[in-house]
Amino acid sequence: MRAAIFNGPGKVLVEDRDKPAVIESTDAIVRVVMACVCGSDLWWYRGISDLSHGSVGHEFIGIVDEVGAGVAELSVGDFVIAPFSWSDGVCRNCEAGFQTACVHVGFFGQGGDGDGGQAEFVRVPYADGTLLKVPGEDLSDEVMASLLALTDVMSTGYHAAVSAGVREGATVAVVGDGAVGLCGVLASKMLGAERVILLGSTHDDRHALAREWGADEIITVRGAEAVKALHDLTHQYGADAVLECVGTKEATETSFAIAKPGAIVGRVGVPHDTVIDPMDTFFRNVGMRGGPAPARHYQPQLLRAVLDGEIEPGKVFDLTTDLEHIADAYEAMDERRAIKALIKVSDR
Amino acid sequence: MRAAIFNGPGKVLVEDRDKPAVIESTDAIVRVVMACVCGSDLWWYRGISDLSHGSVGHEFIGIVDEVGAGVAELSVGDFVIAPFSWSDGVCRNCEAGFQTACVHVGFFGQGGDGDGGQAEFVRVPYADGTLLKVPGEDLSDEVMASLLALTDVMSTGYHAAVSAGVREGATVAVVGDGAVGLCGVLASKMLGAERVILLGSTHDDRHALAREWGADEIITVRGAEAVKALHDLTHQYGADAVLECVGTKEATETSFAIAKPGAIVGRVGVPHDTVIDPMDTFFRNVGMRGGPAPARHYQPQLLRAVLDGEIEPGKVFDLTTDLEHIADAYEAMDERRAIKALIKVSDR
Repeated sequence: MRAAIFNGPGKVLVEDRDKPAVIESTDAIVRVVMACVCGSDLWWYRGISDLSHGSVGHEFIGIVDEVGAGVAELSVGDFVIAPFSWSDGVCRNCEAGFQTACVHVGFFGQGGDGDGGQAEFVRVPYADGTLLKVPGEDLSDEVMASLLALTDVMSTGYHAAVSAGVREGATVAVVGDGAVGLCGVLASKMLGAERVILLGSTHDDRHALAREWGADEIITVRGAEAVKALHDLTHQYGADAVLECVGTKEATETSFAIAKPGAIVGRVGVPHDTVIDPMDTFFRNVGMRGGPAPARHYQPQLLRAVLDGEIEPGKVFDLTTDLEHIADAYEAMDERRAIKALIKVSDR
Repeated sequence: MRAAIFNGPGKVLVEDRDKPAVIESTDAIVRVVMACVCGSDLWWYRGISDLSHGSVGHEFIGIVDEVGAGVAELSVGDFVIAPFSWSDGVCRNCEAGFQTACVHVGFFGQGGDGDGGQAEFVRVPYADGTLLKVPGEDLSDEVMASLLALTDVMSTGYHAAVSAGVREGATVAVVGDGAVGLCGVLASKMLGAERVILLGSTHDDRHALAREWGADEIITVRGAEAVKALHDLTHQYGADAVLECVGTKEATETSFAIAKPGAIVGRVGVPHDTVIDPMDTFFRNVGMRGGPAPARHYQPQLLRAVLDGEIEPGKVFDLTTDLEHIADAYEAMDERRAIKALIKVSDR
């Protein structure tokens, strides 16, 4: 099969690999229909995080091609979406809705062998707990793109909003206008936010989608200026809930600084050199929650919202290519020419 | 009047002071009936925190002695309980239930003049927003002690439990068996905890009250041993909710380490040299909330629970003295001979 293989910072090559096979009886093999490139892939693409040589990509939807003898809930031919990590679905952490802390958790496409989503086929451990079957037959490319968004970016934005405790009538601040931040805007509106203030870059293309999805104001200055701007917009109180969708030191500091006393910062950006001030957060009663999104926990309800036409998170994809040209997708995202790139791998 | 005055570490002297007078029209003067000594008073008593020379004590109940022209809700002769901080009761932070972040907040007995609770009289700013009138006439000393506990320690324990998200059926870990930790045990049971595990010292007197209030297991080892013991008691998953009731580095580290993925650490111990690991908390989806308890927010419901006989938080007082002998109370708490000392200042 053809698979995207990480060959060091800046180098993603499409190479020939053996098609993955069922190893454990609970495995399934999925033929990938669509995959995409994640903002977190850029950390190692840019050499900021370490990754060994190997298969990459943790976002994919596709058709079940083969199942192990222990797979009970899925059949060959099922159309499925995956979360970015596998999980057994039965341990207490899975039952509590934190599948990314499953006692058998693993993450797709971390430089391993045969478990990367940016490939023609993927091996999926704990298939029953991991994969979600999509009902229906005739799904448009647009709907499929929205389902693909549930594998990570939309589930992650939703997790940020849930973690931040977004409620009916809330004034919500979303820090970061990458794909996750934009999905955080959409998720905040789904949860009843009355007003959404986005703190982001000066990229107009991102602003258009943010406004379409419900952002009322957009702050494009940074650091202390952004904190002041947010306070000026909220009678100096701060935001009722804050979604941290970047992970850098500055974004984290800004997030805590703009939180109203008693508010929670919902963190989904992987921390990079961040510091959490134990005193300032304490004296202002500012909390934090979040981490790797339990995408599998949110997927059933988000899938329903997509199929019912309530949300179209697939609009976050503004570049489409095929597997052979995936390097172009990485490059476009690295250079911020694209918000998020969709990779068409095979026909459904 | 007579008032406890801080004269430097280890020295609390009862001295003569002018009776405080109404300064702002929203002030009330309260004649103190009962006061007490707080674990947080020990920080400056021991010289760990700085405090200027002056009046101390932030926990008191008493009788309204005088009101300013702008006080509408209270009358001379009302029996009232105070929270440990004053607040206007009308700003958005007060309305949101975070009175300790009131835009007009102030804290009693921080070395000021006439606003310490360990005295015969106290000046109370924003009296309407701050004081809570107690209905009824004939209250026993035991009930009054329980009302006194609502000024800080019980409200703080309750805030820890609320911040940690304690819910029906939860397995809760309470870190610290000081007066706040013990109240945290009681609060956890009020919120429906099925199982409470206390991490504390080897003091038997504290264990007895903890068990009476609902602690099922008590861990007396510390650090890594305590973390292991907690995990062994929870099938290696950790606690569903953690109450951090100490504030030291070790207690904070232990609290985060014993939290189950997705759990929240409810912090009420004032942080002293603590560190919050941004990465470990992130990857385990462990959250934190908490800070200075908005006692005024919880007091109406806790007052009802005391008057209905549902809770007796006054049992946390195991030493009683009068104002002239308050130095003995500090000494006993400093030497851990007493959990918490009650000061009888005047008759009701």
